[in-house]
Amino acid sequence: MKMPKKICAVITARPSYSRIKSALYAIEHHPDLQLQLVVAGSALLDRYGETINIIEADGFKVDEKVFMVLEGENKMAMAKTTGLGVIELANAFFNLRPDAVITIADRYETIATSIAASYQSIPLIHIQGGEVTGNIDEKVRHANTKFADLHLVASEEGRQRVIKLGEEASKVVNTGCPSIDLARKVYDHPSLGFDPFKKYGGVGSLKNVEESNYLVVLQHPETTTSGKSRFQIEQTLEAVFDLGIPTLWFWPNIDAGSDEVSGGIRSFREQYNPSNIHFFKNMEPEDFLRLINNSSCFIGNSSTGIRECSFLGVPVVNIGNRQYRRQRGLNVMDVDYNKEDIIRAINQQINKKYSQQFIYGNGDSGERIANEIAKFDFSFHKTIRY
Amino acid sequence: MKMPKKICAVITARPSYSRIKSALYAIEHHPDLQLQLVVAGSALLDRYGETINIIEADGFKVDEKVFMVLEGENKMAMAKTTGLGVIELANAFFNLRPDAVITIADRYETIATSIAASYQSIPLIHIQGGEVTGNIDEKVRHANTKFADLHLVASEEGRQRVIKLGEEASKVVNTGCPSIDLARKVYDHPSLGFDPFKKYGGVGSLKNVEESNYLVVLQHPETTTSGKSRFQIEQTLEAVFDLGIPTLWFWPNIDAGSDEVSGGIRSFREQYNPSNIHFFKNMEPEDFLRLINNSSCFIGNSSTGIRECSFLGVPVVNIGNRQYRRQRGLNVMDVDYNKEDIIRAINQQINKKYSQQFIYGNGDSGERIANEIAKFDFSFHKTIRY
Amino acid sequence: MKMPKKICAVITARPSYSRIKSALYAIEHHPDLQLQLVVAGSALLDRYGETINIIEADGFKVDEKVFMVLEGENKMAMAKTTGLGVIELANAFFNLRPDAVITIADRYETIATSIAASYQSIPLIHIQGGEVTGNIDEKVRHANTKFADLHLVASEEGRQRVIKLGEEASKVVNTGCPSIDLARKVYDHPSLGFDPFKKYGGVGSLKNVEESNYLVVLQHPETTTSGKSRFQIEQTLEAVFDLGIPTLWFWPNIDAGSDEVSGGIRSFREQYNPSNIHFFKNMEPEDFLRLINNSSCFIGNSSTGIRECSFLGVPVVNIGNRQYRRQRGLNVMDVDYNKEDIIRAINQQINKKYSQQFIYGNGDSGERIANEIAKFDFSFHKTIRY
Amino acid sequence: MKMPKKICAVITARPSYSRIKSALYAIEHHPDLQLQLVVAGSALLDRYGETINIIEADGFKVDEKVFMVLEGENKMAMAKTTGLGVIELANAFFNLRPDAVITIADRYETIATSIAASYQSIPLIHIQGGEVTGNIDEKVRHANTKFADLHLVASEEGRQRVIKLGEEASKVVNTGCPSIDLARKVYDHPSLGFDPFKKYGGVGSLKNVEESNYLVVLQHPETTTSGKSRFQIEQTLEAVFDLGIPTLWFWPNIDAGSDEVSGGIRSFREQYNPSNIHFFKNMEPEDFLRLINNSSCFIGNSSTGIRECSFLGVPVVNIGNRQYRRQRGLNVMDVDYNKEDIIRAINQQINKKYSQQFIYGNGDSGERIANEIAKFDFSFHKTIRY
Repeated sequence: MKMPKKICAVITARPSYSRIKSALYAIEHHPDLQLQLVVAGSALLDRYGETINIIEADGFKVDEKVFMVLEGENKMAMAKTTGLGVIELANAFFNLRPDAVITIADRYETIATSIAASYQSIPLIHIQGGEVTGNIDEKVRHANTKFADLHLVASEEGRQRVIKLGEEASKVVNTGCPSIDLARKVYDHPSLGFDPFKKYGGVGSLKNVEESNYLVVLQHPETTTSGKSRFQIEQTLEAVFDLGIPTLWFWPNIDAGSDEVSGGIRSFREQYNPSNIHFFKNMEPEDFLRLINNSSCFIGNSSTGIRECSFLGVPVVNIGNRQYRRQRGLNVMDVDYNKEDIIRAINQQINKKYSQQFIYGNGDSGERIANEIAKFDFSFHKTIRY
Repeated sequence: MKMPKKICAVITARPSYSRIKSALYAIEHHPDLQLQLVVAGSALLDRYGETINIIEADGFKVDEKVFMVLEGENKMAMAKTTGLGVIELANAFFNLRPDAVITIADRYETIATSIAASYQSIPLIHIQGGEVTGNIDEKVRHANTKFADLHLVASEEGRQRVIKLGEEASKVVNTGCPSIDLARKVYDHPSLGFDPFKKYGGVGSLKNVEESNYLVVLQHPETTTSGKSRFQIEQTLEAVFDLGIPTLWFWPNIDAGSDEVSGGIRSFREQYNPSNIHFFKNMEPEDFLRLINNSSCFIGNSSTGIRECSFLGVPVVNIGNRQYRRQRGLNVMDVDYNKEDIIRAINQQINKKYSQQFIYGNGDSGERIANEIAKFDFSFHKTIRY
Repeated sequence: MKMPKKICAVITARPSYSRIKSALYAIEHHPDLQLQLVVAGSALLDRYGETINIIEADGFKVDEKVFMVLEGENKMAMAKTTGLGVIELANAFFNLRPDAVITIADRYETIATSIAASYQSIPLIHIQGGEVTGNIDEKVRHANTKFADLHLVASEEGRQRVIKLGEEASKVVNTGCPSIDLARKVYDHPSLGFDPFKKYGGVGSLKNVEESNYLVVLQHPETTTSGKSRFQIEQTLEAVFDLGIPTLWFWPNIDAGSDEVSGGIRSFREQYNPSNIHFFKNMEPEDFLRLINNSSCFIGNSSTGIRECSFLGVPVVNIGNRQYRRQRGLNVMDVDYNKEDIIRAINQQINKKYSQQFIYGNGDSGERIANEIAKFDFSFHKTIRY
Repeated sequence: MKMPKKICAVITARPSYSRIKSALYAIEHHPDLQLQLVVAGSALLDRYGETINIIEADGFKVDEKVFMVLEGENKMAMAKTTGLGVIELANAFFNLRPDAVITIADRYETIATSIAASYQSIPLIHIQGGEVTGNIDEKVRHANTKFADLHLVASEEGRQRVIKLGEEASKVVNTGCPSIDLARKVYDHPSLGFDPFKKYGGVGSLKNVEESNYLVVLQHPETTTSGKSRFQIEQTLEAVFDLGIPTLWFWPNIDAGSDEVSGGIRSFREQYNPSNIHFFKNMEPEDFLRLINNSSCFIGNSSTGIRECSFLGVPVVNIGNRQYRRQRGLNVMDVDYNKEDIIRAINQQINKKYSQQFIYGNGDSGERIANEIAKFDFSFHKTIRY
């Protein structure tokens, strides 16, 4: 009998989990694979909504918890968090002895996973390489690619780019993005099925919303324009406040600049007490998607606007450069951090209908990832293609 | 008046220093640049020959010393050393506030420099990218490329490869390798000018050598075949012992497996007390090169055999895969870790003469590096070319 | 000419600075001493009010900034912050090469200062040893004593206890507490001289207070009863809310449990919007003391209630065990974390007058500390007295 | 049914293991206790003889391996190793969730165990507190005492001293030293039973020794006189070389200065090739003790000379200050680091006979330790006695 291969996924933040959840499920249920789960970084921290609770509530067993986030939320803290992450994750992999490690996407601390695995000669699987954005994530993502032995990318454009980066074509597979798997489930059964105010509380005087008649906002700081995050969030806050449309607003995840964003939101709230906006700290990914799917427009700079929303056909107002050069569908309207532009774009989008687009897969990505991993010949050493 | 730009070079090991020395000198003397020097890792450690003493004796001022090497010389220690390096170097850069940071080549800990600089938005200059080897260094080198904003490569082949990796051609310059600058000085004035036994002591019964009638050996562990380093060093020890030719043998630098190599040398010495071999711990780079230039053959797996020796025209027996796919001259004969093959190759090479080759530049690389840095427009953010 | 001795003080949190400020000033101006200042930990962090800004505004030059606080504010984070602190402070001392290092009091991360100094054979001066509290601080404080070479304690009781702990009597000096120096200044010139609402903003609908007719509250989490901090802060919030007396409330400093305290305050505010309470994030120590000096009662579990208030003669309601067994004056009334008890105690205290007590010195402690350090014979090695 | 209490012992170096082995065995076999074992620091490193192999060969299961030793063997490395140890051990305890942690004696890194346990509110048991030496160990040992909740000391003198340090008498128990348990086994069955040269190899031309007609030497660097270790080891080397008596010499364990000691031994060996000395890297503790028990004198500065040798009645020449003020028996002759004095002392001692002394217990210490732990009421919070 063949021993199942131990595949260790490292989740370091809320969005990473949403993007990989269906793949985790597929790995766990694949006969030739055994899932090991490391939850680390901000996914463990209360003030970012403790993703770990959601993970465990979803029925996953967490093998190691790795506390590594250094206070400061500045550039210095990003570097030190990553350094500490390398040290801590080296321990985790040493204890778990996985046959391969999965690192996800491009957040700054994901390079810690790549280093800790590679320097112990553990084959590395990178999910969502080959994309283009335009800030420090860009550097991290492609560096992850250079450490990885198997590349499971989310789009054909991504596949082409990873190959151009010198990787062997046979080790680069477009599996689509697992985030679309959840989007498909939501698309197939679109009814909301829960009251967000009752289930998640949140803060604000808004007490309910009507289907297809509300906005959803999620806006993160931009690493490349650190120092301007406060101004940027205020533009969107003022735009949405002026429009007066009922709005569900989500706190950003941790990053250099997220204190600025939080501070901006808090001050705005205290000053204007906006009656059309309700603020939520965190939500189960599926509930979050259902809310977007039933909204009239999704606003901000989250990759959800680019990926899931193209599959769902939800109108999106994408602000600023955070999603710069990411392959997008017709449903996305790009604007700058400018109150007037944002108002104009929302007004245009809320009356539009878009059909489904399959840029990031058609909803079976988790299974495809598990299958690719199962059939991968786990060699560690690679060389450049040219 | 324009303030000179502060350029911070990080030296983590003996070979990094040799490779960058002439560039450090040129930066220090360039009117538009100010040199900052961080000495870290094994360059500070006594049992690797304290490179820092050589650096200071050369007249350089060291701005920060960063102790970061974790004991173990195993894969775990490589990861943790790198993690600690990120933390420590983040402090160093925070204190020095350089306008750009230089990371050199591809040793595992060089990625720590790249991360610590990039996450603080300090532009990164990578020296010697675009080469190909075939082990963990390969992954680290190209990951460094993905973090770097300016690429100063050592050969045309390297330049082509970095551009293929997606970097903008305008930011990739073939400056040649600074190690050749020293080789040129040695080539122009080839007389030895010192007695290695008197100047450096070392261990062994050999008391002197005749010009052009001795071998020089430097053999490092191979990271990809960790666990075989002892066997590998013994093949070379036995070959050189059998040949009976006077030989100057150098201890390897720190790496996973270097304990095995050291142990192998020590045991061999205690068992056979080889009268034709003298062992040296470390040497000033120029003295080291002069010894090679005056030898009849250079043996092992050091990159010196590939680079400096092609310029000097010294015959080389290159063993194993450590220099796999690195661009090499006609002077190099490749063999496997096998006593008989090594003996045969040495016997062939010691009677050969080779002319100069300029694959890695013609000896003005340091100045060219300083000039390229001085005229570089220090932008931090980059995006992929395609 | 004699070189002045370099004395390096490490400030890791807001209260440490208040407690040492006058000594820093005296060291800086002492002809035989040269002050070196390391600011570390939460003293650098925005969400704890960036003590460093106050320090620099006071005219001190900061030699090193040490980021070391790990996110989590749980017990795990306390340990890791301390570990990281040892690593980082070792660098700082290596760079600064002080003749002696000052560690202050008993916060968990102060042991990092003790270790980093002692292991580099730098003599250690401990300020405020020999006191008794009753939680993890107790262990840390006495461990600091065992590392220290010179003990400058704040009260006669403290002096006796440090000697009992085995330290040589000649190296234990009661200098009084430097926090009293500031209290003396405030006592001598008691007029408030500023409008706290205008100068510091803060949050809340209260717009002004009348002299001697308001309360000041500062309540930290208790490390020993972690998990109950939320309940504990709510008791005080409810008591003060019920009383309806105008109140100036200060956020707690960082510690395991401070998230619970902050969360409790935030929720209470959002639920009750208490019109008699105004919340301040941070304040210059002198302004803070003036506010207390002009208040009718100081409430909470801060050591300010025990120390400065005994000198000022301000009535204090001290809640819970955080100040357990600390030597206190007649002005302190102790109660449990219980709304009714707190209300009763406040009602009693606001009508009382107390005279000055000199338990923690008479206001020249900073100078006495500088003088003791200047005349100390800096030997590093010590042995136990018995 | 009552769950057994999980007791986690941390072994960081060879001597710690010898000192605790019989207690580990007794804990493992106690019905109310469950042993958890963390092996860390130099106990994992090849060049210090990999104590972990001995531990596993003894049948113990190792629950966590913690790599934490920073290269350098200087004072800086001691601090950073300790800092890293705090971080890494915090993880280990978080994963193992012990009911109590055991920290052993006074090496610099043992404080890392104390901090990592205490800051997670895990009760701490300190073995071998209350002794007096006279260097940095002195500070570390008493600091460990101040963190500990239960003190299991090795002698009556130790018990008195820990109580004087302010600890509650009821929590300080003289269990004797577990190292004596092994000594008792050796004393009861004194025959050597193995050939050290065959079993352990080692280096040197000496091929055998006669019972009661050889010396055993073990000399560590002294932390307080760092920089003089080379001179100190040379005095002993010259003395023993001059005497010409067959000698078994052991390498020192890791510490600031151990490179100096090793270098001194290596140079001496290469220069004089002493025919009467054989050098061993490491040995199972029992074999080591048997060799001492059958020797005519034990020389150096190891605590084995003070403890086990007093029970065995072996003559000891104790050199220097490393064992300063440790309670010793009549069998110990103290000398300075001076060749002539050492020769004179050895000549006197080799003709002496001493009877058994029970200063450090009578050989049932392991069991007594397990029993004390089993009946201890595991409360975490303590306060000072006076």
